[in-house]
Amino acid sequence: MSKHTEEIQKLKSKQQLKWVGKSVKRIDGPEKVTGEQKYKTDLKFPDMVWGKVLRATYPYAKIRAIDTTKAEAHPEVVCVLTHKDIPGFNGFGIVTPDQPVLCEDIVRCTGDAVALVAAETMEAAEEAIKLIEVDYEPLDPVIDAESAMIQGAPRLHPDGNIHSHVTIENGDIEKGFEEADYIFENTFYSPRQMHAFIETEGGWGIMEKDGSLTIHCPAQYGHRDKLQIARALALNPERIHVYSSPNGGGFGGKDEITVQIYLALLAMNTGGRPVKIHLSREESVIAGIKRHSFKVTVKTGAKKDGTLIANKVRAVADTGAYASLGGAVTALAVEHASGPYKIPNVDMEGFCVYTNNGIAGAFRGFGVNQVCVGIETHIDMLAEKTGLDPIEIRKKNAYRQGELSSLGHVVGSSVGTIETLEKAKESDLWINRDLYKSQGSEPWKKKGVAVATSFHGVGMGLGTPDYGAATIELLEDGRFKVGVAIEEIGTGNGTVYAQVAAEVLRCNVDDIVVVQGDTKETLDSGTISASRSTYTGGRAIATAAPNMISLLTEAAAEILEVPNADIELADNKLIVAGDENSFVNYKQIYNKLYEKHQTTRVEGHFYLPREKEELKNSGGAPHHLYGYMTHVVMVEVDTLTGETEVLHVVAIPDVGKVLNPQGLEGQSEGGAVMGIGYTLYEDTLIEGGYHKTKNFTDYIIPTIRETPIIETIPVESNEETGPFGAKGIAEVVMIPIIPAIMAAIYDATGARINHLPATPERIYQAIQATKKQTLVSR
Amino acid sequence: MSKHTEEIQKLKSKQQLKWVGKSVKRIDGPEKVTGEQKYKTDLKFPDMVWGKVLRATYPYAKIRAIDTTKAEAHPEVVCVLTHKDIPGFNGFGIVTPDQPVLCEDIVRCTGDAVALVAAETMEAAEEAIKLIEVDYEPLDPVIDAESAMIQGAPRLHPDGNIHSHVTIENGDIEKGFEEADYIFENTFYSPRQMHAFIETEGGWGIMEKDGSLTIHCPAQYGHRDKLQIARALALNPERIHVYSSPNGGGFGGKDEITVQIYLALLAMNTGGRPVKIHLSREESVIAGIKRHSFKVTVKTGAKKDGTLIANKVRAVADTGAYASLGGAVTALAVEHASGPYKIPNVDMEGFCVYTNNGIAGAFRGFGVNQVCVGIETHIDMLAEKTGLDPIEIRKKNAYRQGELSSLGHVVGSSVGTIETLEKAKESDLWINRDLYKSQGSEPWKKKGVAVATSFHGVGMGLGTPDYGAATIELLEDGRFKVGVAIEEIGTGNGTVYAQVAAEVLRCNVDDIVVVQGDTKETLDSGTISASRSTYTGGRAIATAAPNMISLLTEAAAEILEVPNADIELADNKLIVAGDENSFVNYKQIYNKLYEKHQTTRVEGHFYLPREKEELKNSGGAPHHLYGYMTHVVMVEVDTLTGETEVLHVVAIPDVGKVLNPQGLEGQSEGGAVMGIGYTLYEDTLIEGGYHKTKNFTDYIIPTIRETPIIETIPVESNEETGPFGAKGIAEVVMIPIIPAIMAAIYDATGARINHLPATPERIYQAIQATKKQTLVSR
Repeated sequence: MSKHTEEIQKLKSKQQLKWVGKSVKRIDGPEKVTGEQKYKTDLKFPDMVWGKVLRATYPYAKIRAIDTTKAEAHPEVVCVLTHKDIPGFNGFGIVTPDQPVLCEDIVRCTGDAVALVAAETMEAAEEAIKLIEVDYEPLDPVIDAESAMIQGAPRLHPDGNIHSHVTIENGDIEKGFEEADYIFENTFYSPRQMHAFIETEGGWGIMEKDGSLTIHCPAQYGHRDKLQIARALALNPERIHVYSSPNGGGFGGKDEITVQIYLALLAMNTGGRPVKIHLSREESVIAGIKRHSFKVTVKTGAKKDGTLIANKVRAVADTGAYASLGGAVTALAVEHASGPYKIPNVDMEGFCVYTNNGIAGAFRGFGVNQVCVGIETHIDMLAEKTGLDPIEIRKKNAYRQGELSSLGHVVGSSVGTIETLEKAKESDLWINRDLYKSQGSEPWKKKGVAVATSFHGVGMGLGTPDYGAATIELLEDGRFKVGVAIEEIGTGNGTVYAQVAAEVLRCNVDDIVVVQGDTKETLDSGTISASRSTYTGGRAIATAAPNMISLLTEAAAEILEVPNADIELADNKLIVAGDENSFVNYKQIYNKLYEKHQTTRVEGHFYLPREKEELKNSGGAPHHLYGYMTHVVMVEVDTLTGETEVLHVVAIPDVGKVLNPQGLEGQSEGGAVMGIGYTLYEDTLIEGGYHKTKNFTDYIIPTIRETPIIETIPVESNEETGPFGAKGIAEVVMIPIIPAIMAAIYDATGARINHLPATPERIYQAIQATKKQTLVSR
Repeated sequence: MSKHTEEIQKLKSKQQLKWVGKSVKRIDGPEKVTGEQKYKTDLKFPDMVWGKVLRATYPYAKIRAIDTTKAEAHPEVVCVLTHKDIPGFNGFGIVTPDQPVLCEDIVRCTGDAVALVAAETMEAAEEAIKLIEVDYEPLDPVIDAESAMIQGAPRLHPDGNIHSHVTIENGDIEKGFEEADYIFENTFYSPRQMHAFIETEGGWGIMEKDGSLTIHCPAQYGHRDKLQIARALALNPERIHVYSSPNGGGFGGKDEITVQIYLALLAMNTGGRPVKIHLSREESVIAGIKRHSFKVTVKTGAKKDGTLIANKVRAVADTGAYASLGGAVTALAVEHASGPYKIPNVDMEGFCVYTNNGIAGAFRGFGVNQVCVGIETHIDMLAEKTGLDPIEIRKKNAYRQGELSSLGHVVGSSVGTIETLEKAKESDLWINRDLYKSQGSEPWKKKGVAVATSFHGVGMGLGTPDYGAATIELLEDGRFKVGVAIEEIGTGNGTVYAQVAAEVLRCNVDDIVVVQGDTKETLDSGTISASRSTYTGGRAIATAAPNMISLLTEAAAEILEVPNADIELADNKLIVAGDENSFVNYKQIYNKLYEKHQTTRVEGHFYLPREKEELKNSGGAPHHLYGYMTHVVMVEVDTLTGETEVLHVVAIPDVGKVLNPQGLEGQSEGGAVMGIGYTLYEDTLIEGGYHKTKNFTDYIIPTIRETPIIETIPVESNEETGPFGAKGIAEVVMIPIIPAIMAAIYDATGARINHLPATPERIYQAIQATKKQTLVSR
């Protein structure tokens, strides 16, 4: 048993959990609510200059020449920079650095950066940008991923347009279909969703007097950004300090480099003055990454008794002009495309393809949103064909812990699918669904209730480093400074870190000072993505804590002049075992420790457990750990207009263990609303390489008006490897709601929607088409 | 003026240089000479296990299956590992990670690693390796770089066999040749030289109890190795500590990963026991990198008056199965292919090409050895045609500081070419060359004397980060610990670091403790390569020193209760200005500082100056700084056998400033001998993908018997940006000697050798061919 496990077992067995499992208030709540907390893009300085990026005029064009003379002559301009001014490697990208920092001879999307300006005011910077003359030779853009894959299509990158191709095969797919009693085959299209964070990309940077570089930028992995900046600017990464927290929202959209390298490059050219960039919403839409739009064809075979027996999937993802995390998104899509089931024969493949449609990258759900709709829709069709209960069919096919998945691997970690389905079945919405559906408003408005389940990997896939690290330092005033690099991005992970730390150190949450998103003060702990932050950061803290306790014990024993073994950790102090009156508090211990070790800081490191072997050509599958979730949804469809409203959601996540009920509800509700937006409203439309939706005037996200009643009923599967049994749920909370809404629309109207978002027009047309079919078949 | 420049100007103007410029004894000399110093591969531990790598049976083959069952059953085996056991990314490579850690489905050279074993003894490990059964499907190997470039050749890597293609054009090459009075065109072939370091690749590693990983391995860039290990093993680089110093020789051959990842992977699988690998010479030859063998075609045009007017170069480099630094080697070859001259019209290109001929990578000279022979040979031909003096022609064409190079850029840094040529002209060997040549032994032995000049970039090219960092810490005993990550590899850079530190800190060399090659104790300071170590490390120390002096001054002022400004740095102490009796020594200061700051350590950072703009598609040209050098050489050729001996070498390097005369002589003599080996003896022969020369029994390097008299006459061009005016010379010292020997053979025999090494057979045949031509033309 590891130190960590021992510590937690001890705490659990005594049932003494004081902080974990409680709705501890957000440690950053008051300052966020009052507006006292300044975000990076809020800050201004007296001698600050404004940076601005010149974006490409065309989605695909050769650059013949760039003339900056006129811009340089602008009286308020500080510098004008092009690719010639990049001291290092002119490229970035988390996996493949295929995106130029500043384009040299070609532009591949309208978000491409061609030049940078710094000027005394934002207005002057905008004027100067317009004075830069770029001589383009426009080319015909590649606007469709499937066409881009065909031989002879214009090659957007030297190795061709297929950035990656992943496959997972298990069993014998042909035999599976031969043995099937029913076969369903459909093609599903998914939207190019926008992250729609409140704070658009931006930040500020300064070249310090000592020659080091400071970058403040809301981001999702400051330690990695540092390396990307260093590569582009040929700087020593040790001399770059990135402050990446707090974030006004990220959802994956700030995982890739946004403006960090521009800030750094400008800061090197402004004579030591701070430089700020803050993208307008329109620039954020055009230049920022989006969710990959997918075309997914799914063919599912099943037996009469409801057993799923074969699943064949072909997914094509449009990654736009650059890969960013497109390869990984496609890999996750393929890994999850047969759901949390044990289908014995699968043949799944995915292509990540370059086009000139903007840029796609990481986004909450990471490929699973796009593929979950296929298998879940087919299960509902199967339920209808066989007359079986949709929940029972799912339970019948769901793998349990220790069983083989559709990928053919034994799932050793906790699996909550069946329990979430049982809770769904017991929910009032499901039990009384016929009653609710009959309580109508106008007769042309139809209600429908449906259920869906899904899952999502926690942490990186195989082949990608995945580790957490925490520092704990005893402060002079007796509090503990807990450093975890993983950024605060709105999820409240800092509060959970404080809870875990207070629990394992036996002090109050108020005695914990959490430091996040600071490459100078914290150790590299990986990215805030992949539903990994609570799990990873929590475990890292729990690993550091015994080191701190040893240190405290040693000092207390010396002060009290008793053997180490006699010292016991009590609430906020150390006592001689059994004698509450013989104690020293942390404040006293500080001086003792400092005198002895010249430091009061310890570290804790945690490597995420992983599977032994990667499935060949799968791009990282399988994950060791998954979060599971079921959603029950009620919708109401206006059959005259197609307008649809989600009225009620029951969200049942398998969270391992609830660390903070209020925080969990926040994630669950936010995820549900984002899923509603994805399913019904949101799509970043691009025509001929140009964005049609550029702002929230035409890109509609759900507001409080579109937010239904959301009940969250957590299942605690007790994940052995997690902090106090917890696992990540940040992504899965937005996933099963998508097929659930689609199925509820069908339940209400008899019309199946395979092309998201399910806009009123699409729903209306689907209803009309269904009616026609009905007429014909009579 | 920067702090550094001020500091040095002050020291220089007072002419008080106490350590710099002196033949300070090697700080590591005694323990090296007595054998007290243990190299990494010397160490053994009681509970140590032995690691061994299974190499490929064929130079090119598919792997159908790997069966480790029998090896695992060996009673003394601890673990057997294949590609399946790699937790992270199965690849490494400094620029392009195209080399598998352990091959999965294909092998591309006989050095490829297929499996790893750890066992109780080396013998058991060797037995177990033989028990691993690999089912191969052999393929026809690609053995010629030019054939590999042709369309339709088997593709060794997904993107084809041309790893890189670089070009540099300046002026109008066609016009240049039109205007030329003489044109020379020849093709030169160069050998696949072996680094022949004394200590073959090896080292040991251990997984520490705290889960961190310690790797001891002679290497050339521990901080980078750490990142390559982390990527392959999916570990946090902060938890990997690499100790890479001292080295039993490197010369570039330990710049790439050798066994670091194998040690790390094995250490993760031996239950905390230390694991050692030490390659036999044969395994080192087969698996280690070699110098790139080049085919270089050069066409040079000149005017009657000796002015070089056009130079066209096409270089093809055989990088073997993997790129390593092949792209950069090829880029440097192209950058240097027109010599240190101002040829107005050039058109140069280079190809780096994959074959199945072992693996090539970094090696002292880095592509310049292979190309300098073309332009130097053509200048000699021109001298002969025009009757002009070969030294005068070179002087006429050499660029001076501030002039345009053949690349078309203004050379702003120091240029010593002309001064080195003038010293050559004044040398006794040159002045009295006819006398020496006439003093014969046997009549069939002919002597020849010749001169050649060349140059070599210092530091990385454009686009690659290039920085130095030093730490200085005052120790409790009053000494200074100077940390520079750049490894000790035999060059004595540590001694120079101690000299520079003692000079700028005004203490004795004995008061300096130098720490190198230790990723835990030192900051990333780049690689020990590119002739950069003295220049970069020296400047980093000189940048750190003022920070230390401020700290010392502040403490002394407080102790002596005088203002900071009254404190003066004296020899090994701080005094009140003008009053030698009011002083404090460093030992006293330590306590004061520690009390105040809890640290006595400062940092210094140095970014190498660089050109503003990279020449398009040049892969990093031009460098900001170059070292220049001229060699005069006398050889004696036995015309009956072709056997050739170098009798006398005058080596005239432009070193900027001599920091340690004895150290300089060491470099100069070592470089000359390595150049002799390259020109006359050395070639790693490979036939059909299999190594023919596998050991020093058949691969002949010069011994003391083949070492001539070597005089070193340094030129001090005073490089403004260097530490005390110094620049790097580690590579250029082996370069001009190559064409000088070739020209001296011609001077002796009338036979030109274009295919190196100039073995007796080749020289004999060339003499015979010359005789036949003479007969015909009569």
